[in-house]
Amino acid sequence: MSDRKPLILITNDDGYQAKGIASLTEAMKGLGEVIVFAPDSHRSGMSSAITTSHPLRARMIHHEKDLKAYICNGTPVDCVKLALNEFVDRKPDLLVSGINHGSNAGISVLYSGTMGAAIEGCVFDVPSVGFSLCDFTPDADFSATATVARNLAKKVLEAGLPKGVCLNVNVPMGKVKGIRMTTQTQGKWVNEYYRSKDGSGKDVFWMTGNFENWEEENDSSDEWALANGYAAVVPVKIDMTAYDFLPELTKWNV
Amino acid sequence: MSDRKPLILITNDDGYQAKGIASLTEAMKGLGEVIVFAPDSHRSGMSSAITTSHPLRARMIHHEKDLKAYICNGTPVDCVKLALNEFVDRKPDLLVSGINHGSNAGISVLYSGTMGAAIEGCVFDVPSVGFSLCDFTPDADFSATATVARNLAKKVLEAGLPKGVCLNVNVPMGKVKGIRMTTQTQGKWVNEYYRSKDGSGKDVFWMTGNFENWEEENDSSDEWALANGYAAVVPVKIDMTAYDFLPELTKWNV
Repeated sequence: MSDRKPLILITNDDGYQAKGIASLTEAMKGLGEVIVFAPDSHRSGMSSAITTSHPLRARMIHHEKDLKAYICNGTPVDCVKLALNEFVDRKPDLLVSGINHGSNAGISVLYSGTMGAAIEGCVFDVPSVGFSLCDFTPDADFSATATVARNLAKKVLEAGLPKGVCLNVNVPMGKVKGIRMTTQTQGKWVNEYYRSKDGSGKDVFWMTGNFENWEEENDSSDEWALANGYAAVVPVKIDMTAYDFLPELTKWNV
Repeated sequence: MSDRKPLILITNDDGYQAKGIASLTEAMKGLGEVIVFAPDSHRSGMSSAITTSHPLRARMIHHEKDLKAYICNGTPVDCVKLALNEFVDRKPDLLVSGINHGSNAGISVLYSGTMGAAIEGCVFDVPSVGFSLCDFTPDADFSATATVARNLAKKVLEAGLPKGVCLNVNVPMGKVKGIRMTTQTQGKWVNEYYRSKDGSGKDVFWMTGNFENWEEENDSSDEWALANGYAAVVPVKIDMTAYDFLPELTKWNV
Protein backbone atom coordinates (compact mmCIF):
# COMPACT_ATOMS: atom_id res chain seq x y z
CA MET A 1 0.00 0.00 0.00
CA SER A 2 1.52 3.30 -1.07
CA ASP A 3 1.20 6.30 1.25
CA ARG A 4 0.96 8.57 -1.77
CA LYS A 5 -2.40 10.06 -2.68
CA PRO A 6 -4.44 8.20 -5.28
CA LEU A 7 -3.38 9.14 -8.81
CA ILE A 8 -6.24 10.11 -11.14
CA LEU A 9 -5.71 10.42 -14.91
CA ILE A 10 -8.25 12.56 -16.77
CA THR A 11 -8.80 12.76 -20.51
CA ASN A 12 -11.63 13.39 -22.98
CA ASP A 13 -12.45 13.59 -26.67
CA ASP A 14 -13.73 17.15 -26.91
CA GLY A 15 -10.27 18.59 -26.32
CA TYR A 16 -8.66 20.24 -23.30
CA GLN A 17 -10.57 23.49 -23.71
CA ALA A 18 -14.02 21.89 -23.41
CA LYS A 19 -16.20 22.81 -20.47
CA GLY A 20 -16.84 19.12 -19.78
CA ILE A 21 -13.23 18.27 -18.91
CA ALA A 22 -12.96 21.39 -16.73
CA SER A 23 -16.05 20.24 -14.81
CA LEU A 24 -14.65 16.74 -14.43
CA THR A 25 -11.28 18.05 -13.23
CA GLU A 26 -13.05 20.24 -10.67
CA ALA A 27 -15.11 17.22 -9.55
CA MET A 28 -11.94 15.16 -8.93
CA LYS A 29 -10.27 17.84 -6.77
CA GLY A 30 -9.33 16.62 -3.34
CA LEU A 31 -9.70 12.95 -4.31
CA GLY A 32 -6.02 12.63 -5.18
CA GLU A 33 -3.21 13.81 -7.40
CA VAL A 34 -4.70 14.68 -10.78
CA ILE A 35 -3.04 14.48 -14.19
CA VAL A 36 -4.99 15.81 -17.17
CA PHE A 37 -3.70 14.47 -20.49
CA ALA A 38 -6.10 15.57 -23.20
CA PRO A 39 -6.29 16.10 -26.97
CA ASP A 40 -5.26 19.58 -28.13
CA SER A 41 -8.58 19.93 -29.98
CA HIS A 42 -11.87 18.16 -30.68
CA ARG A 43 -11.53 14.39 -31.38
CA SER A 44 -15.15 13.26 -31.23
CA GLY A 45 -16.20 9.96 -32.78
CA MET A 46 -12.65 8.61 -32.67
CA SER A 47 -13.56 5.34 -30.94
CA SER A 48 -10.35 3.43 -30.07
CA ALA A 49 -8.43 4.94 -33.00
CA ILE A 50 -4.65 5.17 -32.68
CA THR A 51 -2.17 7.28 -34.64
CA THR A 52 0.39 5.29 -36.58
CA SER A 53 1.26 7.48 -39.57
CA HIS A 54 2.70 10.54 -37.86
CA PRO A 55 4.42 11.13 -34.51
CA LEU A 56 2.73 12.35 -31.36
CA ARG A 57 3.77 15.39 -29.39
CA ALA A 58 2.75 16.43 -25.90
CA ARG A 59 3.50 19.40 -23.69
CA MET A 60 2.66 20.51 -20.17
CA ILE A 61 0.33 23.50 -20.05
CA HIS A 62 -0.38 23.74 -16.34
CA HIS A 63 1.28 22.73 -13.07
CA GLU A 64 0.08 23.37 -9.53
CA LYS A 65 -0.05 21.29 -6.36
CA ASP A 66 -1.79 17.96 -7.13
CA LEU A 67 -2.70 19.04 -10.68
CA LYS A 68 -0.67 18.76 -13.86
CA ALA A 69 -2.16 19.23 -17.34
CA TYR A 70 -0.75 18.15 -20.70
CA ILE A 71 -2.07 18.46 -24.23
CA CYS A 72 -1.33 16.04 -27.04
CA ASN A 73 -1.91 16.01 -30.80
CA GLY A 74 -3.40 12.50 -30.77
CA THR A 75 -6.70 10.72 -30.29
CA PRO A 76 -8.16 9.99 -26.84
CA VAL A 77 -6.57 6.50 -26.91
CA ASP A 78 -3.23 8.02 -27.96
CA CYS A 79 -3.49 10.33 -24.93
CA VAL A 80 -4.00 7.39 -22.57
CA LYS A 81 -1.25 5.30 -24.15
CA LEU A 82 1.27 8.15 -24.31
CA ALA A 83 0.53 9.29 -20.74
CA LEU A 84 0.87 5.77 -19.32
CA ASN A 85 3.90 4.76 -21.41
CA GLU A 86 5.91 7.99 -21.17
CA PHE A 87 4.58 10.66 -18.80
CA VAL A 88 3.20 9.08 -15.64
CA ASP A 89 5.62 7.60 -13.11
CA ARG A 90 3.17 5.21 -11.43
CA LYS A 91 0.02 3.34 -12.40
CA PRO A 92 -3.06 5.53 -11.85
CA ASP A 93 -5.65 4.37 -9.34
CA LEU A 94 -8.41 5.74 -11.55
CA LEU A 95 -8.93 7.01 -15.08
CA VAL A 96 -11.90 9.25 -15.81
CA SER A 97 -12.82 10.41 -19.30
CA GLY A 98 -15.19 13.22 -20.27
CA ILE A 99 -17.46 14.76 -19.34
CA ASN A 100 -18.52 14.32 -22.95
CA HIS A 101 -20.75 16.90 -24.56
CA GLY A 102 -23.43 14.48 -25.83
CA SER A 103 -24.71 10.97 -25.13
CA ASN A 104 -22.59 7.86 -25.51
CA ALA A 105 -25.37 5.45 -24.57
CA GLY A 106 -26.52 2.41 -26.55
CA ILE A 107 -24.51 1.51 -29.64
CA SER A 108 -22.65 4.87 -29.46
CA VAL A 109 -20.21 3.20 -27.06
CA LEU A 110 -18.59 1.80 -30.23
CA TYR A 111 -17.90 5.20 -31.81
CA SER A 112 -17.18 7.21 -28.70
CA GLY A 113 -13.71 8.65 -28.13
CA THR A 114 -14.68 9.25 -24.50
CA MET A 115 -15.30 5.54 -24.10
CA GLY A 116 -12.30 4.68 -26.30
CA ALA A 117 -10.16 6.33 -23.61
CA ALA A 118 -11.94 4.54 -20.75
CA ILE A 119 -11.61 1.21 -22.55
CA GLU A 120 -7.88 1.90 -23.04
CA GLY A 121 -7.49 2.62 -19.33
CA CYS A 122 -9.09 -0.76 -18.75
CA VAL A 123 -6.59 -2.38 -21.16
CA PHE A 124 -3.89 -1.01 -18.82
CA ASP A 125 -5.77 -2.53 -15.88
CA VAL A 126 -6.59 0.92 -14.46
CA PRO A 127 -10.14 1.24 -13.05
CA SER A 128 -11.73 3.47 -15.70
CA VAL A 129 -14.97 5.35 -16.18
CA GLY A 130 -16.31 7.43 -19.10
CA PHE A 131 -18.84 10.18 -18.34
CA SER A 132 -21.21 11.78 -20.84
CA LEU A 133 -23.99 14.33 -20.53
CA CYS A 134 -26.87 14.14 -23.01
CA ASP A 135 -26.34 17.73 -24.11
CA PHE A 136 -24.19 18.61 -27.13
CA THR A 137 -23.96 22.34 -26.44
CA PRO A 138 -20.55 23.84 -25.56
CA ASP A 139 -21.96 25.61 -22.48
CA ALA A 140 -24.02 22.67 -21.16
CA ASP A 141 -24.73 22.55 -17.40
CA PHE A 142 -22.42 19.82 -16.10
CA SER A 143 -23.18 20.28 -12.39
CA ALA A 144 -25.41 17.20 -11.92
CA THR A 145 -23.01 15.04 -13.95
CA ALA A 146 -20.06 16.33 -11.92
CA THR A 147 -21.81 15.20 -8.74
CA VAL A 148 -22.45 11.74 -10.21
CA ALA A 149 -18.80 11.65 -11.35
CA ARG A 150 -17.44 12.55 -7.94
CA ASN A 151 -19.59 9.97 -6.14
CA LEU A 152 -18.75 7.22 -8.62
CA ALA A 153 -15.05 8.10 -8.58
CA LYS A 154 -14.98 7.77 -4.78
CA LYS A 155 -16.72 4.42 -5.01
CA VAL A 156 -14.37 3.09 -7.72
CA LEU A 157 -11.30 4.28 -5.77
CA GLU A 158 -12.63 2.32 -2.79
CA ALA A 159 -14.05 -0.81 -4.46
CA GLY A 160 -12.09 -1.05 -7.73
CA LEU A 161 -13.46 -2.70 -10.84
CA PRO A 162 -13.03 -6.26 -12.10
CA LYS A 163 -10.15 -6.86 -14.53
CA GLY A 164 -11.31 -6.14 -18.09
CA VAL A 165 -14.39 -4.13 -17.08
CA CYS A 166 -14.85 -0.33 -17.22
CA LEU A 167 -17.95 1.84 -16.83
CA ASN A 168 -19.94 3.88 -19.36
CA VAL A 169 -21.90 6.55 -17.49
CA ASN A 170 -24.49 8.71 -19.25
CA VAL A 171 -26.45 11.43 -17.51
CA PRO A 172 -29.70 13.01 -18.76
CA MET A 173 -30.24 16.76 -19.04
CA GLY A 174 -31.99 18.47 -16.14
CA LYS A 175 -32.80 16.94 -12.78
CA VAL A 176 -31.36 13.43 -12.19
CA LYS A 177 -33.82 11.08 -10.43
CA GLY A 178 -31.16 8.56 -9.46
CA ILE A 179 -28.63 6.09 -10.87
CA ARG A 180 -29.50 2.89 -12.73
CA MET A 181 -26.98 0.08 -13.21
CA THR A 182 -28.01 -1.10 -16.65
CA THR A 183 -27.17 -2.57 -20.08
CA GLN A 184 -26.23 -1.30 -23.55
CA THR A 185 -29.51 -0.70 -25.40
CA GLN A 186 -29.74 -2.64 -28.63
CA GLY A 187 -30.39 -0.42 -31.62
CA LYS A 188 -28.63 1.57 -34.31
CA TRP A 189 -28.39 4.97 -35.93
CA VAL A 190 -30.51 5.48 -39.07
CA ASN A 191 -30.76 8.19 -41.77
CA GLU A 192 -27.11 8.85 -41.06
CA TYR A 193 -26.29 11.34 -43.83
CA TYR A 194 -27.46 14.71 -44.98
CA ARG A 195 -26.68 14.94 -48.70
CA SER A 196 -25.61 18.37 -49.81
CA LYS A 197 -23.47 19.96 -52.57
CA ASP A 198 -20.02 21.50 -52.49
CA GLY A 199 -19.16 24.76 -54.27
CA SER A 200 -18.73 23.00 -57.61
CA GLY A 201 -22.04 21.11 -57.37
CA LYS A 202 -20.64 17.73 -56.31
CA ASP A 203 -22.45 15.57 -53.75
CA VAL A 204 -21.09 15.60 -50.21
CA PHE A 205 -22.44 13.70 -47.21
CA TRP A 206 -22.58 15.14 -43.69
CA MET A 207 -23.07 12.83 -40.74
CA THR A 208 -26.39 13.23 -38.94
CA GLY A 209 -29.04 10.64 -37.96
CA ASN A 210 -31.47 9.38 -35.35
CA PHE A 211 -31.02 6.55 -32.89
CA GLU A 212 -33.45 3.72 -33.55
CA ASN A 213 -34.12 1.98 -30.24
CA TRP A 214 -34.88 -1.74 -30.61
CA GLU A 215 -35.63 -2.12 -26.91
CA GLU A 216 -38.04 0.72 -26.26
CA GLU A 217 -40.09 -1.33 -23.81
CA ASN A 218 -37.05 -2.63 -21.91
CA ASP A 219 -36.90 -0.69 -18.67
CA SER A 220 -33.50 -2.15 -17.80
CA SER A 221 -31.43 -0.70 -20.65
CA ASP A 222 -29.46 2.55 -20.75
CA GLU A 223 -31.57 4.51 -23.23
CA TRP A 224 -34.68 3.76 -21.15
CA ALA A 225 -32.98 4.98 -17.98
CA LEU A 226 -31.95 8.24 -19.69
CA ALA A 227 -35.38 8.80 -21.24
CA ASN A 228 -36.85 8.42 -17.76
CA GLY A 229 -34.53 10.83 -15.98
CA TYR A 230 -31.97 8.41 -14.53
CA ALA A 231 -28.20 8.40 -14.94
CA ALA A 232 -27.27 5.13 -16.68
CA VAL A 233 -24.18 3.14 -15.67
CA VAL A 234 -23.24 0.28 -18.03
CA PRO A 235 -20.35 -2.05 -17.20
CA VAL A 236 -18.35 -2.54 -20.42
CA LYS A 237 -16.14 -5.55 -21.24
CA ILE A 238 -12.98 -5.29 -23.32
CA ASP A 239 -13.07 -9.00 -24.19
CA MET A 240 -15.44 -8.92 -27.17
CA THR A 241 -15.51 -12.71 -27.64
CA ALA A 242 -19.06 -14.00 -28.20
CA TYR A 243 -18.64 -17.01 -25.90
CA ASP A 244 -22.30 -18.02 -26.35
CA PHE A 245 -21.79 -18.66 -30.07
CA LEU A 246 -18.46 -20.46 -29.76
CA PRO A 247 -19.87 -23.99 -29.24
CA GLU A 248 -21.97 -23.74 -32.41
CA LEU A 249 -19.15 -22.10 -34.38
CA THR A 250 -16.82 -24.93 -33.40
CA LYS A 251 -19.12 -27.35 -35.25
CA TRP A 252 -18.69 -25.47 -38.54
CA ASN A 253 -16.94 -27.54 -41.13
CA VAL A 254 -14.80 -25.09 -43.12
CA MET B 1 -36.33 -15.42 -50.93
CA SER B 2 -34.97 -13.12 -53.61
CA ASP B 3 -33.91 -14.66 -56.91
CA ARG B 4 -31.11 -12.11 -57.15
CA LYS B 5 -27.55 -13.20 -56.49
CA PRO B 6 -26.20 -12.71 -52.97
CA LEU B 7 -24.89 -9.19 -52.50
CA ILE B 8 -21.40 -8.96 -50.99
CA LEU B 9 -20.00 -5.68 -49.67
CA ILE B 10 -16.21 -5.45 -49.42
CA THR B 11 -14.17 -2.85 -47.60
CA ASN B 12 -10.85 -2.55 -45.75
CA ASP B 13 -8.65 -0.15 -43.84
CA ASP B 14 -5.50 -0.23 -45.97
CA GLY B 15 -7.21 1.64 -48.81
CA TYR B 16 -8.56 0.51 -52.19
CA GLN B 17 -5.12 0.12 -53.74
CA ALA B 18 -3.88 -2.43 -51.20
CA LYS B 19 -3.06 -5.93 -52.40
CA GLY B 20 -5.17 -7.37 -49.56
CA ILE B 21 -8.48 -6.00 -50.82
CA ALA B 22 -7.67 -7.06 -54.38
CA SER B 23 -7.07 -10.62 -53.12
CA LEU B 24 -10.31 -10.56 -51.12
CA THR B 25 -12.29 -9.27 -54.11
CA GLU B 26 -10.83 -12.01 -56.29
CA ALA B 27 -11.75 -14.59 -53.61
CA MET B 28 -15.40 -13.44 -53.59
CA LYS B 29 -15.79 -13.70 -57.38
CA GLY B 30 -18.61 -15.98 -58.45
CA LEU B 31 -20.19 -16.00 -54.98
CA GLY B 32 -22.49 -13.12 -55.83
CA GLU B 33 -22.76 -9.51 -56.88
CA VAL B 34 -19.82 -7.65 -55.36
CA ILE B 35 -19.64 -4.00 -54.29
CA VAL B 36 -16.28 -2.69 -53.12
CA PHE B 37 -16.57 0.50 -51.05
CA ALA B 38 -13.16 1.31 -49.64
CA PRO B 39 -11.15 4.21 -48.22
CA ASP B 40 -9.25 6.25 -50.82
CA SER B 41 -6.02 5.72 -48.84
CA HIS B 42 -4.57 4.01 -45.78
CA ARG B 43 -6.83 4.22 -42.64
CA SER B 44 -5.11 1.71 -40.33
CA GLY B 45 -5.79 1.81 -36.59
CA MET B 46 -9.04 3.70 -37.06
CA SER B 47 -11.12 1.32 -34.93
CA SER B 48 -14.82 2.31 -35.21
CA ALA B 49 -13.99 5.99 -35.79
CA ILE B 50 -16.54 8.08 -37.69
CA THR B 51 -16.12 11.41 -39.45
CA THR B 52 -18.26 14.21 -38.06
CA SER B 53 -16.28 17.40 -38.70
CA HIS B 54 -16.10 17.38 -42.49
CA PRO B 55 -18.29 15.90 -45.23
CA LEU B 56 -17.72 12.58 -46.96
CA ARG B 57 -17.37 12.13 -50.68
CA ALA B 58 -17.51 8.93 -52.72
CA ARG B 59 -17.11 8.08 -56.37
CA MET B 60 -17.35 4.99 -58.54
CA ILE B 61 -14.00 3.93 -59.95
CA HIS B 62 -14.92 0.63 -61.60
CA HIS B 63 -18.02 -1.04 -63.04
CA GLU B 64 -18.29 -4.43 -64.69
CA LYS B 65 -20.80 -7.30 -64.51
CA ASP B 66 -21.32 -8.22 -60.82
CA LEU B 67 -18.57 -5.88 -59.64
CA LYS B 68 -18.76 -2.20 -58.76
CA ALA B 69 -16.03 -0.33 -56.88
CA TYR B 70 -16.25 2.99 -55.05
CA ILE B 71 -13.70 4.99 -53.09
CA CYS B 72 -14.51 7.27 -50.18
CA ASN B 73 -12.57 9.85 -48.15
CA GLY B 74 -13.73 8.40 -44.83
CA THR B 75 -12.78 5.78 -42.29
CA PRO B 76 -13.66 2.08 -42.72
CA VAL B 77 -16.83 2.60 -40.63
CA ASP B 78 -17.73 5.67 -42.70
CA CYS B 79 -17.40 3.49 -45.81
CA VAL B 80 -19.82 0.91 -44.43
CA LYS B 81 -22.29 3.51 -43.20
CA LEU B 82 -22.20 5.58 -46.38
CA ALA B 83 -22.49 2.51 -48.63
CA LEU B 84 -25.44 1.11 -46.71
CA ASN B 85 -27.24 4.43 -46.20
CA GLU B 86 -26.74 5.94 -49.65
CA PHE B 87 -25.18 3.67 -52.28
CA VAL B 88 -26.55 0.14 -51.97
CA ASP B 89 -30.14 -0.56 -53.01
CA ARG B 90 -30.61 -3.71 -50.91
CA LYS B 91 -29.23 -5.15 -47.71
CA PRO B 92 -26.04 -7.14 -48.38
CA ASP B 93 -26.04 -10.85 -47.59
CA LEU B 94 -22.42 -10.62 -46.48
CA LEU B 95 -19.83 -7.99 -45.60
CA VAL B 96 -16.15 -8.91 -45.79
CA SER B 97 -13.37 -6.58 -44.68
CA GLY B 98 -9.66 -6.86 -45.42
CA ILE B 99 -7.58 -8.72 -46.13
CA ASN B 100 -5.63 -6.63 -43.64
CA HIS B 101 -1.86 -6.35 -43.98
CA GLY B 102 -1.02 -7.34 -40.39
CA SER B 103 -2.57 -9.19 -37.45
CA ASN B 104 -5.74 -8.05 -35.71
CA ALA B 105 -5.72 -10.83 -33.13
CA GLY B 106 -5.98 -10.41 -29.36
CA ILE B 107 -6.59 -6.90 -28.04
CA SER B 108 -5.87 -5.44 -31.50
CA VAL B 109 -9.54 -6.07 -32.34
CA LEU B 110 -10.18 -2.81 -30.43
CA TYR B 111 -7.92 -0.66 -32.63
CA SER B 112 -8.47 -2.36 -35.97
CA GLY B 113 -10.19 -0.49 -38.78
CA THR B 114 -10.66 -3.82 -40.56
CA MET B 115 -12.67 -5.05 -37.57
CA GLY B 116 -14.32 -1.63 -37.13
CA ALA B 117 -15.87 -2.18 -40.58
CA ALA B 118 -16.94 -5.76 -39.77
CA ILE B 119 -18.44 -4.64 -36.46
CA GLU B 120 -20.33 -1.90 -38.31
CA GLY B 121 -21.72 -4.43 -40.79
CA CYS B 122 -22.92 -6.36 -37.75
CA VAL B 123 -24.60 -3.19 -36.39
CA PHE B 124 -26.54 -3.18 -39.69
CA ASP B 125 -27.44 -6.83 -39.10
CA VAL B 126 -25.36 -7.92 -42.10
CA PRO B 127 -23.35 -11.14 -41.54
CA SER B 128 -19.82 -9.72 -41.39
CA VAL B 129 -16.27 -11.05 -41.30
CA GLY B 130 -12.92 -9.28 -41.00
CA PHE B 131 -9.84 -11.02 -42.45
CA SER B 132 -6.23 -10.27 -41.54
CA LEU B 133 -2.92 -11.85 -42.53
CA CYS B 134 -0.07 -11.70 -40.02
CA ASP B 135 2.21 -10.00 -42.53
CA PHE B 136 2.54 -6.20 -42.69
CA THR B 137 4.37 -6.07 -46.02
CA PRO B 138 2.61 -4.45 -48.99
CA ASP B 139 3.37 -7.44 -51.27
CA ALA B 140 2.43 -10.17 -48.73
CA ASP B 141 1.27 -13.54 -50.09
CA PHE B 142 -2.50 -13.55 -49.53
CA SER B 143 -3.23 -16.84 -51.31
CA ALA B 144 -3.82 -19.00 -48.22
CA THR B 145 -5.91 -16.27 -46.56
CA ALA B 146 -7.94 -15.87 -49.74
CA THR B 147 -8.77 -19.59 -49.64
CA VAL B 148 -9.82 -19.32 -45.97
CA ALA B 149 -11.88 -16.22 -46.87
CA ARG B 150 -13.66 -17.94 -49.73
CA ASN B 151 -14.54 -21.02 -47.68
CA LEU B 152 -15.75 -18.98 -44.72
CA ALA B 153 -17.74 -16.60 -46.96
CA LYS B 154 -19.55 -19.57 -48.51
CA LYS B 155 -20.33 -20.95 -45.07
CA VAL B 156 -21.59 -17.60 -43.74
CA LEU B 157 -23.75 -17.08 -46.85
CA GLU B 158 -25.29 -20.50 -46.19
CA ALA B 159 -25.53 -20.51 -42.36
CA GLY B 160 -25.66 -16.80 -41.46
CA LEU B 161 -24.42 -15.46 -38.13
CA PRO B 162 -26.36 -14.72 -34.93
CA LYS B 163 -27.66 -11.16 -34.53
CA GLY B 164 -24.97 -9.01 -32.94
CA VAL B 165 -22.06 -11.38 -33.71
CA CYS B 166 -19.39 -10.99 -36.41
CA LEU B 167 -16.13 -12.85 -37.00
CA ASN B 168 -12.50 -11.80 -36.59
CA VAL B 169 -10.33 -14.07 -38.74
CA ASN B 170 -6.53 -13.96 -38.53
CA VAL B 171 -4.28 -16.11 -40.65
CA PRO B 172 -0.60 -16.89 -39.97
CA MET B 173 2.15 -16.47 -42.53
CA GLY B 174 3.17 -19.54 -44.51
CA LYS B 175 1.40 -22.88 -44.54
CA VAL B 176 -1.93 -22.96 -42.68
CA LYS B 177 -2.45 -26.17 -40.65
CA GLY B 178 -6.19 -25.66 -40.24
CA ILE B 179 -8.81 -23.39 -38.71
CA ARG B 180 -9.38 -22.93 -34.96
CA MET B 181 -12.62 -21.42 -33.60
CA THR B 182 -11.21 -19.55 -30.66
CA THR B 183 -11.24 -16.59 -28.23
CA GLN B 184 -9.66 -13.12 -27.99
CA THR B 185 -6.31 -13.58 -26.23
CA GLN B 186 -6.00 -11.47 -23.10
CA GLY B 187 -2.98 -9.21 -23.15
CA LYS B 188 -1.83 -5.76 -24.17
CA TRP B 189 0.75 -3.85 -26.17
CA VAL B 190 3.78 -2.63 -24.22
CA ASN B 191 6.71 -0.27 -24.95
CA GLU B 192 4.35 1.48 -27.33
CA TYR B 193 6.47 4.51 -28.31
CA TYR B 194 9.79 5.18 -29.92
CA ARG B 195 10.96 8.58 -28.67
CA SER B 196 12.78 10.61 -31.27
CA LYS B 197 13.44 14.28 -32.10
CA ASP B 198 12.00 16.56 -34.76
CA GLY B 199 14.13 18.96 -36.84
CA SER B 200 14.16 21.55 -34.07
CA GLY B 201 15.15 19.09 -31.34
CA LYS B 202 11.70 18.63 -29.78
CA ASP B 203 10.55 15.21 -28.54
CA VAL B 204 8.20 13.27 -30.79
CA PHE B 205 6.72 9.83 -30.16
CA TRP B 206 6.21 7.21 -32.86
CA MET B 207 3.92 4.28 -32.24
CA THR B 208 5.65 0.91 -32.03
CA GLY B 209 5.48 -1.84 -29.37
CA ASN B 210 5.26 -5.54 -28.61
CA PHE B 211 2.22 -7.59 -27.73
CA GLU B 212 2.43 -8.98 -24.21
CA ASN B 213 0.44 -12.22 -24.13
CA TRP B 214 -1.15 -12.95 -20.74
CA GLU B 215 -2.41 -16.34 -21.88
CA GLU B 216 0.67 -17.89 -23.39
CA GLU B 217 -0.19 -21.35 -22.11
CA ASN B 218 -3.82 -21.17 -23.24
CA ASP B 219 -4.11 -23.33 -26.34
CA SER B 220 -7.63 -22.13 -26.99
CA SER B 221 -6.98 -18.44 -27.66
CA ASP B 222 -6.30 -16.71 -30.96
CA GLU B 223 -2.64 -15.77 -30.45
CA TRP B 224 -1.87 -19.40 -29.56
CA ALA B 225 -3.60 -20.65 -32.70
CA LEU B 226 -1.60 -18.22 -34.87
CA ALA B 227 1.71 -19.02 -33.15
CA ASN B 228 1.03 -22.69 -33.88
CA GLY B 229 0.19 -22.31 -37.56
CA TYR B 230 -3.61 -22.24 -37.42
CA ALA B 231 -6.01 -19.63 -38.77
CA ALA B 232 -7.90 -18.17 -35.78
CA VAL B 233 -11.62 -17.38 -35.99
CA VAL B 234 -13.00 -15.37 -33.04
CA PRO B 235 -16.73 -14.61 -32.80
CA VAL B 236 -17.04 -10.95 -31.75
CA LYS B 237 -20.03 -9.40 -29.94
CA ILE B 238 -21.16 -5.81 -30.47
CA ASP B 239 -22.97 -5.72 -27.13
CA MET B 240 -20.09 -4.85 -24.80
CA THR B 241 -22.16 -5.06 -21.59
CA ALA B 242 -20.32 -6.97 -18.85
CA TYR B 243 -23.39 -8.94 -17.77
CA ASP B 244 -21.35 -10.95 -15.23
CA PHE B 245 -20.53 -7.85 -13.22
CA LEU B 246 -24.02 -6.31 -13.33
CA PRO B 247 -25.43 -8.10 -10.24
CA GLU B 248 -22.54 -6.85 -8.09
CA LEU B 249 -22.63 -3.36 -9.60
CA THR B 250 -26.34 -3.12 -8.84
CA LYS B 251 -25.50 -3.45 -5.14
CA TRP B 252 -23.28 -0.34 -5.23
CA ASN B 253 -24.64 2.45 -3.11
CA VAL B 254 -23.77 5.66 -4.99
